[in-house]
Amino acid sequence: MSVTAPRGFLASGVAAGIRPSGKPDVALVRSVAPAVGCAMWTRNRVQAAPVVVSRRHLETAQPQAVVVNAGVANAATGRPGEEDALATAARTAQLLGLRPEEVVVLSTGVIGPRLPMERLLAGVDAAAAALSRDGGAIAAEAILTTDQGPKTAVAAADGFTVAGMAKGAGMIHPCLATMLAVVTTDYPLAAGEADSFLRPAVERSFNRISVDGDCSTNDAVVLLANGMSGITDRDPGLDERFSRRLEEVCADLARQIVADGEGATVVLEIVVSSASSHEEAEAIALRVATSPLVKTAAFGRDPNWGRVLAAAGSAPSNGGFARLDPDRLRVAFDGTPVFARGAPTGQVPELAGASCRIELDLGLGDGEAAYLASDLSYDYVRLNAEYTT
Amino acid sequence: MSVTAPRGFLASGVAAGIRPSGKPDVALVRSVAPAVGCAMWTRNRVQAAPVVVSRRHLETAQPQAVVVNAGVANAATGRPGEEDALATAARTAQLLGLRPEEVVVLSTGVIGPRLPMERLLAGVDAAAAALSRDGGAIAAEAILTTDQGPKTAVAAADGFTVAGMAKGAGMIHPCLATMLAVVTTDYPLAAGEADSFLRPAVERSFNRISVDGDCSTNDAVVLLANGMSGITDRDPGLDERFSRRLEEVCADLARQIVADGEGATVVLEIVVSSASSHEEAEAIALRVATSPLVKTAAFGRDPNWGRVLAAAGSAPSNGGFARLDPDRLRVAFDGTPVFARGAPTGQVPELAGASCRIELDLGLGDGEAAYLASDLSYDYVRLNAEYTT
Repeated sequence: MSVTAPRGFLASGVAAGIRPSGKPDVALVRSVAPAVGCAMWTRNRVQAAPVVVSRRHLETAQPQAVVVNAGVANAATGRPGEEDALATAARTAQLLGLRPEEVVVLSTGVIGPRLPMERLLAGVDAAAAALSRDGGAIAAEAILTTDQGPKTAVAAADGFTVAGMAKGAGMIHPCLATMLAVVTTDYPLAAGEADSFLRPAVERSFNRISVDGDCSTNDAVVLLANGMSGITDRDPGLDERFSRRLEEVCADLARQIVADGEGATVVLEIVVSSASSHEEAEAIALRVATSPLVKTAAFGRDPNWGRVLAAAGSAPSNGGFARLDPDRLRVAFDGTPVFARGAPTGQVPELAGASCRIELDLGLGDGEAAYLASDLSYDYVRLNAEYTT
Repeated sequence: MSVTAPRGFLASGVAAGIRPSGKPDVALVRSVAPAVGCAMWTRNRVQAAPVVVSRRHLETAQPQAVVVNAGVANAATGRPGEEDALATAARTAQLLGLRPEEVVVLSTGVIGPRLPMERLLAGVDAAAAALSRDGGAIAAEAILTTDQGPKTAVAAADGFTVAGMAKGAGMIHPCLATMLAVVTTDYPLAAGEADSFLRPAVERSFNRISVDGDCSTNDAVVLLANGMSGITDRDPGLDERFSRRLEEVCADLARQIVADGEGATVVLEIVVSSASSHEEAEAIALRVATSPLVKTAAFGRDPNWGRVLAAAGSAPSNGGFARLDPDRLRVAFDGTPVFARGAPTGQVPELAGASCRIELDLGLGDGEAAYLASDLSYDYVRLNAEYTT
């Protein structure tokens, strides 16, 4: 169901022939009632044309529909690329009876080439005709690139529903949204309010994952809220529960993205506590989460805490490295202490399963942070060396 | 010849049984005349015992000998590890008629385990007995771990000689020295002067390379200068020529380290020009040099400039990203322009050989920086997933 789980959302996915595989590659999501919404975008200095165009749209209008294509990222395409993104929004708007500014355009795929506009616009026509209450699943298929499978999440409680779909796989890194995700809800939000709910949820989910430390030019998280749950008596308690569901959906999608990271065989959960500050906890968790040596060891199921120490000890912070005192540091793998009081404990944890929790207790202050990361495998190299993505 | 090329240096390498392979694993370098010298160390917050001990030694004495073991890093070993490093220095000093503070101890290998002291001290005995003018080559063998082969460099001019040996392979990243290197010269330097020559040479060589972005706990560059060239009439011009030779030797060793990076098949030369500032040029060059997507593309000989753009656009700088305007940016692979004025040029460079030069001209200011990096291959994953290093 994904994005069509909340009341009043239609979706579709069609194969427009943009992906060479012939798989679905154009997705459309549409609220049937006037919606409010917002988006968070990649902070990369190189912003894809659909990001440039959609940001501009959201400055003047509330989003009512999202059109996504996979296969070509429409990034680094200059002014002609922007015109292609505008034309995509215009056609979508015309078909759905909207203004172009009410359409968010997203693209994912290869950087550089122009969009095959004839095929894409024919795909938009077909997607508009195919919009349905059952379209959530096929829409979630149509936004994928090198992903192994679709990523969807639904949370329902207290009379409202939050749902989402995402694509990830490569160039996944918390430089902001860092992949595509469309989240829908029938919870009633006022115009301008969506951002204050989406931002903290994204901070604690999509911005805490890393597959390869690379930050894409196209990343986006879009939230549409149409109020069709019928809820009219909002209060801070209900808002809080909505926030929690929203974060739940975002965190669920984020974890699926890591688990399906290019070539991933294990999800690493890096948990840093008692750092000198939150900023330094962040820097250390990120450093460990992006260390190729930690990630290849994880692929080999080697509880190599030496590499964890080396990474943690060189986490950039304020022009130097984050504070770390080996004599106070405690490191554990899946709950088994491996390093404490400046020396190895001698215990050797058994790593098997599809996840591994690496805890670092710095013993310095109250800074905390956590990251999810995938391992670094042969398949990561194969996927990225053999194909242009 | 390596470190024994300059006048008045002896070296040796012996197999002490620390490396399971049975290869040489203890190296000794000794100046026959009173030398002056200095070292630059890893900035990692987790510092190996030999680093802690040797730093302390150099605070009170000029280094006359360097003893190196491979196989065990003596890192994260706490107080007992420091005692092992001290015992190694003490035995070396006793055999060579030196004070322990005049001995620099270096270790490289697995993090965590204690040194096998009985075997190591027997190795030191054998290495001291084997010291010779021909020992440079075997010493360069005895400091290796996963390296494919020894790395040595010699530069001679104006009546003096500079030479060095290095080991690299993994955990190579410019957080300071980031590997082991011992550089010798018969140029006459006064006590306290060595540092002002070594520091700029290291900044422009060892601190400009990255194999995997990981920064080791043991990295060190040591310089010994014994003045045995017989040069007595130094002047600024000659000092300048010595500086150049020193930098040449460091750069030669640094390039060999990258070319022999774990699993490396190509040396990437990332050259950034016209950035807003030198700091931002640095950040961009480093970001591109450490991008797994750029490095896997290089392994696949794919001139994937889209990934270069995505990496360059997300180079951390001052809490945000370094300035980059796609409309001013020009990117070239091996001299072939691939991106200019906000759009692809359409040209497709042919990547073959064992090196690839990626140039980014930002068109913003006068910031410049260059990095050497290796690619990311199956063998990198194999080496680091299958073995504990």
